[in-house]
Amino acid sequence: MNTEMKDSRIVFIGAGNLATHLARALYAKGYNIVQVYSRTLEAASELASKVAASFTNDFEAINTDASLYIISLTDSAFVNLIPQIVKGKNKEALFVHTAGTLPMELWQGHASRYGVFYPMQTFSKQRDVDFASIPIFIEANNQQDTDLLLKIASDISQKARLATSEQRKKLHVAAVFACNFTNHMYALTAELLEKSNLSFDVMLPLIDETARKVHTLAPHTAQTGPAKRNDLLVMNEHLRMLEDDPAVADLYATLSQSITNHHKND
Amino acid sequence: MNTEMKDSRIVFIGAGNLATHLARALYAKGYNIVQVYSRTLEAASELASKVAASFTNDFEAINTDASLYIISLTDSAFVNLIPQIVKGKNKEALFVHTAGTLPMELWQGHASRYGVFYPMQTFSKQRDVDFASIPIFIEANNQQDTDLLLKIASDISQKARLATSEQRKKLHVAAVFACNFTNHMYALTAELLEKSNLSFDVMLPLIDETARKVHTLAPHTAQTGPAKRNDLLVMNEHLRMLEDDPAVADLYATLSQSITNHHKND
Repeated sequence: MNTEMKDSRIVFIGAGNLATHLARALYAKGYNIVQVYSRTLEAASELASKVAASFTNDFEAINTDASLYIISLTDSAFVNLIPQIVKGKNKEALFVHTAGTLPMELWQGHASRYGVFYPMQTFSKQRDVDFASIPIFIEANNQQDTDLLLKIASDISQKARLATSEQRKKLHVAAVFACNFTNHMYALTAELLEKSNLSFDVMLPLIDETARKVHTLAPHTAQTGPAKRNDLLVMNEHLRMLEDDPAVADLYATLSQSITNHHKND
Repeated sequence: MNTEMKDSRIVFIGAGNLATHLARALYAKGYNIVQVYSRTLEAASELASKVAASFTNDFEAINTDASLYIISLTDSAFVNLIPQIVKGKNKEALFVHTAGTLPMELWQGHASRYGVFYPMQTFSKQRDVDFASIPIFIEANNQQDTDLLLKIASDISQKARLATSEQRKKLHVAAVFACNFTNHMYALTAELLEKSNLSFDVMLPLIDETARKVHTLAPHTAQTGPAKRNDLLVMNEHLRMLEDDPAVADLYATLSQSITNHHKND
């Protein structure tokens, strides 16, 4: 670990999925997490117990003398709380948020040292992740802190790199498609199978191969299925089958049309 | 391999992605593929060369004395061609199609022995697959052929099983969500990144983890992201960023709304 960070005192503000995994990854590398704040004592204490930290659900009780504050709240909450977050804190402290879409400059005028520490991954508390393979995008308002954050990120990941707020925001919206919308497709799959008393597990080889394919083929090239072939017979039969769930039928029609549009010039 | 099939003579009608992978898997297990038909000589000869078969693009020149005809055409083409496919062929031959959504009974009145052989996977010619892990769903109009097809499927896959036409159709529509729509999300991701000169490869750890997660968590539980959190600040900013591509912005709004609806009672 970095000598500069040896005596660091890290406070986590937020104890959600991302905060939980990031705090645990840092703790495992020997970083000193002194306190966890969360809106609920339950969440604060749960994470605190995993990283040997104290915990609080009282904003006024957050340590004022930490060297690094890592803020991982929902974006709306964070934006409103910035003045409260920095109020009364050590003027030499470094403040970072972990959000994909929020610009670094939100800190401007509030703190003197600030930045962003954005691990691009889907985190659920119930599931361990290997931080080493997770891209972490770093930004800070001065070169020294950029280097510092990059060193910290490199301690827990082999894929630490710099990104501007503009780039990070574009990565985030793309990640919503790659991950959040993709997972929603899995959720709709599970719903359809459940209605037919079929096991979701039967889909796993297909889900895995679909993900593996785009390691070697561009997604446009990897596309298969009735919409790509513009096979109206199949699509109409599927729409008929989905009639009892108009929202899902609409999604089927909209997504099929989008695929057909993308392949009309193949 | 099955002794019954040792002297089998298999004809493939269709030389697309599925036919190519299935023919090669059967050939690798010692099955005797005598001929490949395709609408284009190029496709027919390409597959034929891989499985030591003859080839034709002339429907009239399809072998009449094969024991097993495997038809893998687009569904619309297949439905129209059934009479031509069976016409003049060996009355003792077994006819199967490989489609997810078409019922087995399409063969009724045309052939005396018939069935379905549906490998549920996404196939691209440019990419090898391991057939052993692919679920294959079997159906036939008599017990003997059900057993026979199940034996053939079990020769190339550890996941051969029976499914009725009704079940298979439900599996197929679910697979469109799990695979085709998922891959389209990857394609939209690639488009967004390309516009920003960012590499698609940066998304692979996220794509992989999203797929891996649903091996241990139900997709509903695995869901993350701004729509699940109903984080309007982020979603509105993303919609603003996508303004120059209204079709993609509409998809973003529709899919986010669907996720929010699915999680409003969490």
